[in-house]
Amino acid sequence: MMEFSIKSRVYLEDSDAQGIVYYVNYLKFMERARTDFLRDLGFDFQSLQSQKGHFVVHSLDVRYLKPAKVDDEILITATITKTARTYVVFLQEIRLIKPPGEEPNDPNADVLCRSQVKVACVSSGSGKPMVIPPQIADAFQTKTVSIQGDR
Amino acid sequence: MMEFSIKSRVYLEDSDAQGIVYYVNYLKFMERARTDFLRDLGFDFQSLQSQKGHFVVHSLDVRYLKPAKVDDEILITATITKTARTYVVFLQEIRLIKPPGEEPNDPNADVLCRSQVKVACVSSGSGKPMVIPPQIADAFQTKTVSIQGDR
Amino acid sequence: MMEFSIKSRVYLEDSDAQGIVYYVNYLKFMERARTDFLRDLGFDFQSLQSQKGHFVVHSLDVRYLKPAKVDDEILITATITKTARTYVVFLQEIRLIKPPGEEPNDPNADVLCRSQVKVACVSSGSGKPMVIPPQIADAFQTKTVSIQGDR
Amino acid sequence: MMEFSIKSRVYLEDSDAQGIVYYVNYLKFMERARTDFLRDLGFDFQSLQSQKGHFVVHSLDVRYLKPAKVDDEILITATITKTARTYVVFLQEIRLIKPPGEEPNDPNADVLCRSQVKVACVSSGSGKPMVIPPQIADAFQTKTVSIQGDR
Repeated sequence: MMEFSIKSRVYLEDSDAQGIVYYVNYLKFMERARTDFLRDLGFDFQSLQSQKGHFVVHSLDVRYLKPAKVDDEILITATITKTARTYVVFLQEIRLIKPPGEEPNDPNADVLCRSQVKVACVSSGSGKPMVIPPQIADAFQTKTVSIQGDR
Repeated sequence: MMEFSIKSRVYLEDSDAQGIVYYVNYLKFMERARTDFLRDLGFDFQSLQSQKGHFVVHSLDVRYLKPAKVDDEILITATITKTARTYVVFLQEIRLIKPPGEEPNDPNADVLCRSQVKVACVSSGSGKPMVIPPQIADAFQTKTVSIQGDR
Repeated sequence: MMEFSIKSRVYLEDSDAQGIVYYVNYLKFMERARTDFLRDLGFDFQSLQSQKGHFVVHSLDVRYLKPAKVDDEILITATITKTARTYVVFLQEIRLIKPPGEEPNDPNADVLCRSQVKVACVSSGSGKPMVIPPQIADAFQTKTVSIQGDR
Repeated sequence: MMEFSIKSRVYLEDSDAQGIVYYVNYLKFMERARTDFLRDLGFDFQSLQSQKGHFVVHSLDVRYLKPAKVDDEILITATITKTARTYVVFLQEIRLIKPPGEEPNDPNADVLCRSQVKVACVSSGSGKPMVIPPQIADAFQTKTVSIQGDR
């Protein structure tokens, strides 16, 4: 399976006075999935730091479709759609997990938001673009899915 | 002047372990500018609620150019580039304010990030698209700048 | 076991420019544990709302002992030390989970912070104190530990 | 005047699904006031870093009295009640600013929450307690108010 995913619960901290998840916070959920994906491949925040680099978000776009509410259980996905020398592109979705007993999920019907996130590797000192360390790039490569219409 | 702006300081709460502003938090700064823009036009969160509607972010894209750090003073701009029946599009920038004594700002050189945010008016009950109340739409209209290449 | 606990990972979103977890965010972790504790007893945010009440934090104190860092795995505990008519008191700790292979945890050596949180039940309309609904109070009662020196 | 204060507006980002400011976020407002107080005395986050130290919150307690809501304007105060060799204690309040035209504020009637925060100076490397640099300690000293019942 090329799509990585984690589950999470929505807590009061994630919500706002409109009674739904504050739209900015979906991006935090998405980063948790990217981080766990990287960890699943054998790398973490500190292992990259030891190579004098770190990953930063270069650009992103998000399309909000339906809101999540407190108590909801959600699935956060991350799929690598492009691995380049100094950056990697993720396609991510947040989907509502229906409580047991309700009809089976129609994946498209339950997508709450969808995002494309371009993550760049930069030098910790200068902040300049840096080539992704080979063992990380190789791991990304084995997980990269070609998607039609990728930017 | 069609561009609305506010100033803010960067605090520890805004930063992350990379020593810079956590990229998600720029979106909070941008919302503060949109909210104050709306307030400047005579409307606030609660005045819209009394009309059984509220504004939600429909979609956004962000391009991160340079990071801000704790103690930095920043300018957050908001310009309306399109007003439609049920939504409005903002172009927003966050710019570093140079300390007094440093050479005058080159606006382009100091842009930290740039975003396009589409904000939709929805019915508070159903969450369905709702026509922007006329007095708010009129106020937006008087502040709308036509920008070449607007989506 | 009277102590309820959940595990969590520390992400970049939780950290600050000092390279550690931003001290305010430990309180979010603690609320997640209280919420999951309540859910484990059969109640959630929305079930309480249907009774026209909700829980709010009345007061809290926190003692910070050692910092957590990005990538750390932590255990967040919640123990009920008092159940009264309109409020409940939790004692909570956040402990560092040592990676496998390191010597066994000395519970006291690994406590990162410790908090006492008094949570009150209030009427959703007026915000006035409200008697905790009996089935919730009974569930709290079965989980209440008498602790010497409790306030 | 020994009490330092800043004003702020409450934004959607500060609120939660209960329609009020998420209780954890009051602590962020309080830190902004402490930071601006320090800046007003001539010191900032980076000036302390250059002395190989930084300030961390050692412990705090908060008493929540009344909630703030989106659009509210609030006053955040900070008063130094004790300056010791390696730490400083602040008494802080958040007060609702009544809209013009309403009756004059009764300071006690408008207190939304009150907190005591003990801030310690620690060595950036080891995290061990560090003596507050003399010029900062002196500045704190001139602003320290003796309060009966201070811990």
